[in-house]
Amino acid sequence: MNKKSFFIVLILLSVVLVSGCSSSVGNPPEKPGTADSNFESVEDSGSGTGSGDIDVLYQVSTIDALLQGVYDGVLPVAELETHGDFGIGTFDGLEGEMLALDGNYYQIKTDGIAYPVSGEMTTPFATVTCFEADENFRLEEPANLSELEAFLDMNLPSENLFYAARVDGNFSYIKARSVPRQEKPYPKLADAVSTQSVFEFENISGTLVGFRAPEYVKGVNVPGYHLHFITADRSAGGHVLDLEMDNGDVSLDITSAFFMELPTSGDFYNVELGQDLQADMEKVEK
Amino acid sequence: MNKKSFFIVLILLSVVLVSGCSSSVGNPPEKPGTADSNFESVEDSGSGTGSGDIDVLYQVSTIDALLQGVYDGVLPVAELETHGDFGIGTFDGLEGEMLALDGNYYQIKTDGIAYPVSGEMTTPFATVTCFEADENFRLEEPANLSELEAFLDMNLPSENLFYAARVDGNFSYIKARSVPRQEKPYPKLADAVSTQSVFEFENISGTLVGFRAPEYVKGVNVPGYHLHFITADRSAGGHVLDLEMDNGDVSLDITSAFFMELPTSGDFYNVELGQDLQADMEKVEK
Repeated sequence: MNKKSFFIVLILLSVVLVSGCSSSVGNPPEKPGTADSNFESVEDSGSGTGSGDIDVLYQVSTIDALLQGVYDGVLPVAELETHGDFGIGTFDGLEGEMLALDGNYYQIKTDGIAYPVSGEMTTPFATVTCFEADENFRLEEPANLSELEAFLDMNLPSENLFYAARVDGNFSYIKARSVPRQEKPYPKLADAVSTQSVFEFENISGTLVGFRAPEYVKGVNVPGYHLHFITADRSAGGHVLDLEMDNGDVSLDITSAFFMELPTSGDFYNVELGQDLQADMEKVEK
Repeated sequence: MNKKSFFIVLILLSVVLVSGCSSSVGNPPEKPGTADSNFESVEDSGSGTGSGDIDVLYQVSTIDALLQGVYDGVLPVAELETHGDFGIGTFDGLEGEMLALDGNYYQIKTDGIAYPVSGEMTTPFATVTCFEADENFRLEEPANLSELEAFLDMNLPSENLFYAARVDGNFSYIKARSVPRQEKPYPKLADAVSTQSVFEFENISGTLVGFRAPEYVKGVNVPGYHLHFITADRSAGGHVLDLEMDNGDVSLDITSAFFMELPTSGDFYNVELGQDLQADMEKVEK
């Protein structure tokens, strides 16, 4: 390798490694089926596997561990940020709803206010990605939450992949919640949400941030949609319980790779997983 | 950054990116709970997230897609190799059992013989990792398959993580199988295995290669153990149906991160997933 090539390689390597959600190096993201093979590998996305990859949904722990009360933060937000600029989750001790949008992380506490998040704060459960829209739609008709989800479903290339969904819209009504910090011994999530604060917004503009996970990852993530909300001025929001949308712009990011990091100590080790927690899930989500 | 630091960084970056399963850079793998935080992040393993990471179980597609007959190869072995030197799976068209050990990939066909694998061959489903033993045990007592699995279970730090398991042993009996290449329209796996070839080995030395997946990933991977076998001279083997082991050396690799890449076109898009395929799984595995 001559000196010039050497430095070009150095620069490329540096870009790959220091970027959190930088765009791919050279290769634009491709839509499914347009690649040479019928497998759009993460390498093809241009930035190696893992950190900062645009088509990877990165997750900390599992939804069932959270349902069972594993609330101790295990990953600092400073590290979570390297895996995504967009996502949802919660914080150490189940203290509030996490929402990440355009690279900014927010903590929505029980007063409904969206607070900035420091890199030292930790999460017991979060799902993030580097958001790059693969499909965009305009929704002009009013829609409630079920109708919005049905509209999104109609536009999915497959129900068997993961998707990140962003909706910048005008809402006549949004019902959202946040959960207070829990104390040990931690209650199960279905019990913890009995102390949740519920906020109602009327005639508000803002952004829905969330994911659609396939049915077959039940136990790992929430099958179907899981959405959080933040107002257009990024001042308030919460975990979405219900909504009436007037109109909005919908973006879907197809995330065909799923990267889950599990806690390597603490409550996660001994919690009973693998049970059917469907009833708990319904109590918690809606 | 001065010139010296600059070159040190360059060298580190190069090692990180070109390695498939190279050992970690500087940081030896740590046992759970010994890290500063209670989360042994992949970064801490020394080689960034993804490709070649020592504590990542890398998977192509899902077990339920395979059970439903999605057999078209979607990832070349040349790429799979960058994610692991150890693992199991199958090949395009369900042609034989895949086994990877010490960086060598084998295809065990219906004659029971282990053939070398070329990088152009593709897989519809495989699970690999860069194997580095976290725990080693010597088993001196004879054990059948259930007893071996129970012994392994007794030595797991948690049932909620993924593990790679390697057993170099002497076996009084091993019953293994392989499956012939299927033609389209592909039958379901439970039907395809009705044409399997079964091999019986007696008084043979060799290696069991496989994984233990937690119960909560049912639908994604095989809950519990999934083992393939290859003889000590690496000439024959198959998917393990039954065994009687005299003694052996057992190694467990704790893989706390799980990276799943899904096909972005082909049969995977439209196959019905999320059903309970437990009955099919039992028919296929044992």
